[in-house]
Amino acid sequence: MESAGIFDSVKELMDEVETRFHKELQPRSNSLADLIAHIGKYKGKRLRPALVLLSGKCVGDIVPQHIELAVVVEMVHTATLVHDDIIDEATMRRHVESVNSKWGREISILFGDYLFSRGFTILSTLDSQIATLLLSQTVNIMSEGELIQLQRRYDLGLSENDYFDIIERKTASLCAASCRLGATFAGANRKVSDRLFNYGLKVGIAFQIVDDCLDVMGTEEEIGKSLNTDIQKGKLTLPLIRLVNQLSGNKLETAKELIFQHDSRDTKAAIVGC
Amino acid sequence: MESAGIFDSVKELMDEVETRFHKELQPRSNSLADLIAHIGKYKGKRLRPALVLLSGKCVGDIVPQHIELAVVVEMVHTATLVHDDIIDEATMRRHVESVNSKWGREISILFGDYLFSRGFTILSTLDSQIATLLLSQTVNIMSEGELIQLQRRYDLGLSENDYFDIIERKTASLCAASCRLGATFAGANRKVSDRLFNYGLKVGIAFQIVDDCLDVMGTEEEIGKSLNTDIQKGKLTLPLIRLVNQLSGNKLETAKELIFQHDSRDTKAAIVGC
Repeated sequence: MESAGIFDSVKELMDEVETRFHKELQPRSNSLADLIAHIGKYKGKRLRPALVLLSGKCVGDIVPQHIELAVVVEMVHTATLVHDDIIDEATMRRHVESVNSKWGREISILFGDYLFSRGFTILSTLDSQIATLLLSQTVNIMSEGELIQLQRRYDLGLSENDYFDIIERKTASLCAASCRLGATFAGANRKVSDRLFNYGLKVGIAFQIVDDCLDVMGTEEEIGKSLNTDIQKGKLTLPLIRLVNQLSGNKLETAKELIFQHDSRDTKAAIVGC
Repeated sequence: MESAGIFDSVKELMDEVETRFHKELQPRSNSLADLIAHIGKYKGKRLRPALVLLSGKCVGDIVPQHIELAVVVEMVHTATLVHDDIIDEATMRRHVESVNSKWGREISILFGDYLFSRGFTILSTLDSQIATLLLSQTVNIMSEGELIQLQRRYDLGLSENDYFDIIERKTASLCAASCRLGATFAGANRKVSDRLFNYGLKVGIAFQIVDDCLDVMGTEEEIGKSLNTDIQKGKLTLPLIRLVNQLSGNKLETAKELIFQHDSRDTKAAIVGC
């Protein structure tokens, strides 16, 4: 017997979010038709919309605003993916070619901006200061997290605490905001909303750790996106930090050389072998 | 006797906007300190904040929200400059090195996102649905205008109407929004707000035409930013469209060749000579 998935209780609502997401993306001019049709092929896990809905259900009733909020968090997330794929020079995303690989970085920069502002336009129709403030602050924190990560590439002094600070900002903050929004719009008080926020933070951190391990251990066919980009780009993720911390003497020197050589195959072999 | 500048009546308010802009940009983490200090050196014309204040004064009293709105439109404008300079590969902006030239495109993408979201965070403190909806829609229109411009590079079929459509989106829309915001927050009714919006649209279009002419005719010392980027990047601006439309036969073929050769010096000479 198949075990129940954690999204099962919100399956119908998730279908509604999916329909609405595609409707909101409908291009108003020909210039965007191809880009939007391509983004429509991205089949993501829709983790963030699910967190909005599950947190809402956990607290009380789902209201129409939950669907809108779920669409907004997915739109903002998609915008960050489009910009991240430029930085990582990723060629594959969600089982299809990345926007960056198909149209180049110039189009990708502007299309990311388009998706961010589309998300905030939908959000502003809700007329909720709490939601607008929380999501704009979250995007701010996310971009700061990505900036810190970039600035500390190839820095072997990056500690586990530094790593957790980065992933909390760049990934977990939007998961936490999704939970807080879901809870708040279902009538949660501050205490309950804070607890679901913290739950989202933990889910986001766990998700990013798995994602970082898959970047080293996974296969592109299974995962559906470009892998090994972390090592290629000098991003020190948890598997690499743990590798460096476990080694000493010659082995440490060899690992450092491999990381700074930017040869991902050898580094991957070294990590898997440890 | 020196003639009165159009900004004279709002000079003190503009100083307040300047102080507030720098205060709002204060970095909360070390990772951003250098980037923000650099942006602080950008000495712009502050056209959009001036349009907020002048439109407000034109209708009624200036209120504290006008200062906030003026800061927000400048923040959003600065974000678009940071992203545009990646696309144009511009090395100079507002008399100093561009963020792209100094830190590269990866940092520039994320720093642009940071500035956009900072602008929307300040905006959300005003708790105005009208302002949030208008500005998010405006950023959406601006990115669409830039996308259309990119897609039609090196396209000699670009008409003057197409050009005006592009510059209305990418430049004039934020000037128009600045005027509408200034008017609305001073208590303007719909009719007055619409008229000032249209005034802003015309100012923005005029401003962009001048900017496009300066790209061909100006000097970098005077203008303080990288010039000739339009021709280098295949952007057909009004001077180039007029050049192509005036020519026929061999002269037209030569102009086309020069444009498609991407040799900006020869094309510049051809335009100035026409």
